[in-house]
Amino acid sequence: MKIALCQINTIVGNIEYNKSKIINYYNRAVKDGADLAIFPELSLIGYPPLDLVEKKEFRLASTKALYEVASQTGNTGLLLGTIAEGDDNIGTDIHNSAIFCYDGKVQFLQHKSLIPNYDVFDEMRYFDSAKSIYVHEFKGEKLGISVCEDIWNDADYWYKQRYSYDPVKELIIKGSEVIINISASPYSYGKRESRKNMLSVLCKTERVPLAYVCFVGAQTELIFDGASMCFDAEGNLVKLGKAFREDYFIFDTKEKYMPIKTSEGSFEEETLNALIFGLKEYCEKQNFKKVIVGLSGGIDSALVTYIAVKAIGTENVHIILMPSKYSSEGSIKDSEKFIKNLGISYSNVSIQSVVKETLNALSPIITEEPKKIVEENIQARIRGVYLMAVSNQFGYLLLATGNKSEMAVGYCTLYGDMAGGLGVIADVYKTDVYRISNYINKEKEIIPKEIIDKVPSAELSPGQTDQDTLPPYELLDNILKMYLEENKEYEEITSIIGDGEVVRKVLRMVDNNEYKRRQAAPALRVSTKAFGYGRRYPVVQGWRR
Amino acid sequence: MKIALCQINTIVGNIEYNKSKIINYYNRAVKDGADLAIFPELSLIGYPPLDLVEKKEFRLASTKALYEVASQTGNTGLLLGTIAEGDDNIGTDIHNSAIFCYDGKVQFLQHKSLIPNYDVFDEMRYFDSAKSIYVHEFKGEKLGISVCEDIWNDADYWYKQRYSYDPVKELIIKGSEVIINISASPYSYGKRESRKNMLSVLCKTERVPLAYVCFVGAQTELIFDGASMCFDAEGNLVKLGKAFREDYFIFDTKEKYMPIKTSEGSFEEETLNALIFGLKEYCEKQNFKKVIVGLSGGIDSALVTYIAVKAIGTENVHIILMPSKYSSEGSIKDSEKFIKNLGISYSNVSIQSVVKETLNALSPIITEEPKKIVEENIQARIRGVYLMAVSNQFGYLLLATGNKSEMAVGYCTLYGDMAGGLGVIADVYKTDVYRISNYINKEKEIIPKEIIDKVPSAELSPGQTDQDTLPPYELLDNILKMYLEENKEYEEITSIIGDGEVVRKVLRMVDNNEYKRRQAAPALRVSTKAFGYGRRYPVVQGWRR
Repeated sequence: MKIALCQINTIVGNIEYNKSKIINYYNRAVKDGADLAIFPELSLIGYPPLDLVEKKEFRLASTKALYEVASQTGNTGLLLGTIAEGDDNIGTDIHNSAIFCYDGKVQFLQHKSLIPNYDVFDEMRYFDSAKSIYVHEFKGEKLGISVCEDIWNDADYWYKQRYSYDPVKELIIKGSEVIINISASPYSYGKRESRKNMLSVLCKTERVPLAYVCFVGAQTELIFDGASMCFDAEGNLVKLGKAFREDYFIFDTKEKYMPIKTSEGSFEEETLNALIFGLKEYCEKQNFKKVIVGLSGGIDSALVTYIAVKAIGTENVHIILMPSKYSSEGSIKDSEKFIKNLGISYSNVSIQSVVKETLNALSPIITEEPKKIVEENIQARIRGVYLMAVSNQFGYLLLATGNKSEMAVGYCTLYGDMAGGLGVIADVYKTDVYRISNYINKEKEIIPKEIIDKVPSAELSPGQTDQDTLPPYELLDNILKMYLEENKEYEEITSIIGDGEVVRKVLRMVDNNEYKRRQAAPALRVSTKAFGYGRRYPVVQGWRR
Repeated sequence: MKIALCQINTIVGNIEYNKSKIINYYNRAVKDGADLAIFPELSLIGYPPLDLVEKKEFRLASTKALYEVASQTGNTGLLLGTIAEGDDNIGTDIHNSAIFCYDGKVQFLQHKSLIPNYDVFDEMRYFDSAKSIYVHEFKGEKLGISVCEDIWNDADYWYKQRYSYDPVKELIIKGSEVIINISASPYSYGKRESRKNMLSVLCKTERVPLAYVCFVGAQTELIFDGASMCFDAEGNLVKLGKAFREDYFIFDTKEKYMPIKTSEGSFEEETLNALIFGLKEYCEKQNFKKVIVGLSGGIDSALVTYIAVKAIGTENVHIILMPSKYSSEGSIKDSEKFIKNLGISYSNVSIQSVVKETLNALSPIITEEPKKIVEENIQARIRGVYLMAVSNQFGYLLLATGNKSEMAVGYCTLYGDMAGGLGVIADVYKTDVYRISNYINKEKEIIPKEIIDKVPSAELSPGQTDQDTLPPYELLDNILKMYLEENKEYEEITSIIGDGEVVRKVLRMVDNNEYKRRQAAPALRVSTKAFGYGRRYPVVQGWRR
């Protein structure tokens, strides 16, 4: 069977756009003599649709579009993902389905069986589980059709199973000769290789070929890398779609292909590409032509600027320098060097007079000497006012430049440096900001060495450095990764780190700053556990170690 | 059987605090000769614990505390809610349980069967469903024990069921002589009466008495009203706990009580009480002694100020007036009158010089005449800078004063009037802000008539009124309620309103401003559908009517 994998980028809610794209790719597959064209999970309505699914008019529009797509089909099959409503009166009665069309009609529906409801997934909020599973025979071949999570519960691969049932095993028992999985799987580094290994074990164990088509695109914070995969019945990866862009290719289950060894590059390469793609997608889908960045002279805003240039082009990135009396001479010089390296436009406007006027105006209320933190925050917030004014005036998207380490411990100012529409590196630890910056510089110095080598400082008071307040970043990030990513707690982390005091301090800082993060911009997700949607931590709570 | 209903206020995560409180109330029940003391859902760990449940050390601490509680028990039963771990290797293997202790030991566990996963509930993220249900015999009486949602699936009451199974019916079939439900049910107006009616139908139909104990307290945005209820076997409500405060009372299933007719006051009374309680709880649990409010002369900030005074006392509320050249003379005069009525302290600091200096500083970038919106936003944001400076200097909580109508359509400024730690009335429509304000004034003019009668205006440019940009509030709120609360869509709303253009405009405004609300302060929830946690709408999306 010749299967055309249509790794398309769709827009949540834009059913008309998605429908046209599906029909276009289907027609290409027909022209290429494919037996079957397959599209990602929920491709007709976009993934994740969230509460749009709860709207009846939205569901009706999706059904109408499905029948329009089906009406365009001939004897080449078309398998797409969309929602399907059931006919009983219990539960949501809505399914996340793979729908098979040919000869002008919807011919077969397979609802998703395993409904993920962890981390960034809320699918049980919307979808009921399939009640039954069938193998669908098409052109003399028995197809085992599954949706995303359905394939992630293999007892041969996982030590602990999330679900008591394995729908793919049932498809195999029922005689599937080819397994198809339509998917939308958010990216974090390492997931592609892990998926490859899991699917390889399945194919090898069951002696069955597999076509896995995955959504590519970004949806606010979630980044879907595409990288669709096909395996032969020996478990070899034999086809691999492009990462972070649309792709289309044909997999012939009867043909012999050369095995592909690896699916994923280095952490630095993949994460950088994911961030560039995530920002590009946000700008395109939200219709922002240009962005602004407040460049401080530090490494975080420099990395964000580089990502922006790669995402939407040199001419669409505008830099604002906003020095104060605490800005080091180097900050401006280094920034200008960096700006020259990239060839981007910039403006320089001091915050000094406005900060002074603000402190002056507030002197009837803040009669004592203002606390250090107050003066620091006023500076950060006046910068926020400047950047948002430029954003409002010209319609540019303001990029937030905070990294994950600062967001974690609250080393950032609400409405100040936290201002912005998208947190570009808010899911990247500070030590990884360095790794990625060095990777960018590996052939040529793009980010000036002075910026990379500089002692990290917010430059909000004289001689201030981050390490006045925080543990060294290597240690901090080590603790944060265990706490956030691996869900380790005080006792376990202390047994590894040794110093219980620093662990307690860091965990408290993370917990106590939940209120700040609740008001943070959405952050491009590139780790296994990002702040925001996938981490639901109480603001008010009294859990203490 | 004499059942002591212990309607206690617990703190999420503060297991030690909750444990002590449970033991204290248990001892009181023992002294009162109760057979059994019952406590709300998850009372030992607090509700909702969110991702704390995923921490192993947290679960271990909760188990330890449970055994400590159990060890304190004698022959009076103690039924509390906490988490319990299972012993298989599939799923989360964690349960939301009702745990029955006496004679120093844990004697019986009944896990929750129906796991809510809609609106603000994410329980399937954490909890597996009970595999079985048993009636527990205690002191010769067969007790049917259930947890919260378990009792919300009665086919005799609901037109559409969420679940295919009714655990309470099973408890009755298995011979329960008394039904007990331990609960944590967030409040919105009308829910108490609706709950009363549902429970009444159950008791009447099944000829069984019922004791329903509900958590009282607020957890960031969620407000739990308490108002525990007991019913006789004729379906009469015979005991009703206090709303919005801790309570304790004894229900003797053998005694004859007078029926109680209504459980809920007027919309204005209940909503006002809920907001006062919600704010009080946030301040107490987050350890804020004082709050500040920026009083604009409009009705929203006036209502927030009144709520703050009722929540934490006159002496703990500080007002900042921040006039600009666009502030009407009335604004300051009316504000001062209101401040006098309440007897609170205030400061007056103009924003004029800082706004002017900001525009001046930005003139090298914003070389053309700044757009109206830019100047308006700068004013709002400088006010934000002032308020946050005072908040940072003195450690006061800044209250955000936006109402639900403005939050819905984005008629508010990010980092400006949206600044603050808690959105006190962000779930109250503008027309309801008027209703509640008039209710406050019903005996005596507290909020000056001038403030209530004034044409709504942000006063950010000359002669500006809200209705320059928005439909009249009566119409706007009507559309918003259908769209947000009733999940109606364009066609249906238009068929009721008549004017499709205004409906389309409003729905677009709501959808297009999701990005702003993602950065809003948590909002006290008093409606059936609040922005924030319970409404998950994509920021990037293309659903158009």
